[in-house]
Amino acid sequence: MKRLTAALMLSLAVLTATAQSKKVEYNFTEASDLTMVGKLMPDTPNPYHRVDTVKFKGFTKSENKQVRMSAGLSVAFKTDSKVITIKTKYEDRSFPVNTGGLSARGYDLYIRKDGKWLWAASAVAKDNKPDDNVTLIKDMDGTMHECLLYLPVFSEESSIKIGTEKNATIEAIDNPFRHRIGIFGSSFTHGTSTSRAGMSYPDQLSRMTGLQFLSLGCSGNSKLQTYFADVLCAADVDALVFDGFSNPEAPMIKERLFPFIEKIQKAHPDIPLIFQRTIYREYRNFNTDRDNNERVKTAMADSLMDIAVKKYKNVYYIKTTCATSKDHEATVDGIHPSDYGYTLWAKSIEKPIKKILKKYGIK
Amino acid sequence: MKRLTAALMLSLAVLTATAQSKKVEYNFTEASDLTMVGKLMPDTPNPYHRVDTVKFKGFTKSENKQVRMSAGLSVAFKTDSKVITIKTKYEDRSFPVNTGGLSARGYDLYIRKDGKWLWAASAVAKDNKPDDNVTLIKDMDGTMHECLLYLPVFSEESSIKIGTEKNATIEAIDNPFRHRIGIFGSSFTHGTSTSRAGMSYPDQLSRMTGLQFLSLGCSGNSKLQTYFADVLCAADVDALVFDGFSNPEAPMIKERLFPFIEKIQKAHPDIPLIFQRTIYREYRNFNTDRDNNERVKTAMADSLMDIAVKKYKNVYYIKTTCATSKDHEATVDGIHPSDYGYTLWAKSIEKPIKKILKKYGIK
Repeated sequence: MKRLTAALMLSLAVLTATAQSKKVEYNFTEASDLTMVGKLMPDTPNPYHRVDTVKFKGFTKSENKQVRMSAGLSVAFKTDSKVITIKTKYEDRSFPVNTGGLSARGYDLYIRKDGKWLWAASAVAKDNKPDDNVTLIKDMDGTMHECLLYLPVFSEESSIKIGTEKNATIEAIDNPFRHRIGIFGSSFTHGTSTSRAGMSYPDQLSRMTGLQFLSLGCSGNSKLQTYFADVLCAADVDALVFDGFSNPEAPMIKERLFPFIEKIQKAHPDIPLIFQRTIYREYRNFNTDRDNNERVKTAMADSLMDIAVKKYKNVYYIKTTCATSKDHEATVDGIHPSDYGYTLWAKSIEKPIKKILKKYGIK
Repeated sequence: MKRLTAALMLSLAVLTATAQSKKVEYNFTEASDLTMVGKLMPDTPNPYHRVDTVKFKGFTKSENKQVRMSAGLSVAFKTDSKVITIKTKYEDRSFPVNTGGLSARGYDLYIRKDGKWLWAASAVAKDNKPDDNVTLIKDMDGTMHECLLYLPVFSEESSIKIGTEKNATIEAIDNPFRHRIGIFGSSFTHGTSTSRAGMSYPDQLSRMTGLQFLSLGCSGNSKLQTYFADVLCAADVDALVFDGFSNPEAPMIKERLFPFIEKIQKAHPDIPLIFQRTIYREYRNFNTDRDNNERVKTAMADSLMDIAVKKYKNVYYIKTTCATSKDHEATVDGIHPSDYGYTLWAKSIEKPIKKILKKYGIK
């Protein structure tokens, strides 16, 4: 034990020395001056909005609010700062009980290591002091790190300033993900019930595949609306993925699906439109009505998509979508998967999506 | 498509009929009049407290508050009600950003199916109307179901009333778990960062093994304190498990570990005392100080436990404790695992714990 004690003594001395915290002087960089990742519409006047709500009309009040949230957006940069802090000017914040505060209002940092994105830190300013800085990470080694910082999922921001040590470098890096693949979807695509901002299935899929998924997830509001089609028609994308059968009931799917496809195909005749079957919701386990309703909804989507894939060129249907673990424990509230449920979802569609995209030279 | 449409029409008709919701008349039963599960100290004056803070002294203010929280407690009953609602009288509620609202303040229901506990529902009253009923589940099939209802993790309640339909039955069932195995531990054992109340690793371990784990998880406060030993000495238990090296720093572990073991052994000379190594915290990935600190802490615990297992009878050390997924995505805030991280933790200790307990006839 003697040898160990000596090692401990040394380590403790190191700890004590570094524990004497000194006031850090920061240099602040607006996040949007670095590389914005995951932006479906790159030219929004507020860079943290997903859609320009002055330009695109037809949204309900809550949809308007949602498309201004920074869900699915991230910022790529490199820095040799030992500390990173963030100062936010929030325009709106949400406090959902089924979604973590770190996800709804906070930041999630990954750092590239051995070619992969390794999780580094998550943090959010105090709920009663949202305008204060929050230290995201400190005591880094001072070498240059490539960073990917996910923005809040259920908040709107007018400014996000990344603070690095005064004498450190911070610079944009190239977008780490390839191509532009839009996803229009429900709360699932939005990231509801994630515990931190980078755990939605489109974000996980981007990290898994290296492909760039551009999220237009709008919790409760992915209903094949014609005004959302307007946005998707105007978007510069190589492919589109739809979580389009999670929110609408069967009659709405019947009424809207084909016109929705036709409208988007007119604008994007040559890109793949990939629809996903909605997932199994655990609230069906003992609720007979919900079980019946889900069955009806999925049957309608399946039957129409059987026709659509034959009727329309470049239209695909993925039926493998799955966020259910064997033990049925990967749900938060019976509707929304946990982080791990979203991992399972991303894994369940990874191969089928890559296979389709490959046909179009997207890989 | 004709055949499908007919099927859909029928299903939609059923839906419409049942969607005409009528006001349910409830019969309310105090949860503690049913079977309380997971209670380390069964005789607390408030049945939802984990420790009687009038009887046991020495706790800090925050520890006092924590041991009155209902973390790890659940209620077992059977009912044929189609609806279950809950009405709570909260004494205290927490709003942590790294823990789901459904977990911190809400309820988590499992129903027995084919001999296993299958997740059924989770819910919490509105944050601004905590005293209102919350409907946990509805539209059940009206047959008798065996239920296990987990109570809030970061709240104190003076009353929890379970509402069932006026003409339905609700009755206590036998405790579904065997034996009494106490766990004293940190935020990990408490259930910090779970998304719902039944996802702490002791709860998951109970469902996995059928053994009853009785949690005394106290976030940040599992530091081998002598006054916590007092509680454990007084508890009627068949075994004790410790997540005792997550909160204290190395010097505290050195000072307190052996006296703590000796005190508890005096009261419980013949039961196994099973210590767990603390887990890998993802915040070490890029924070050099934290990485060093964790190494020091774990080295101290390892070295002392090497001695302890030889020095003391019935003392064990489990080094397999693991909440880290291969992709390092099973963390919420770098300290605390996600629900899935806790699943991995429970799985990592299941076999070693069962092996030790078996020696003592606990199986």
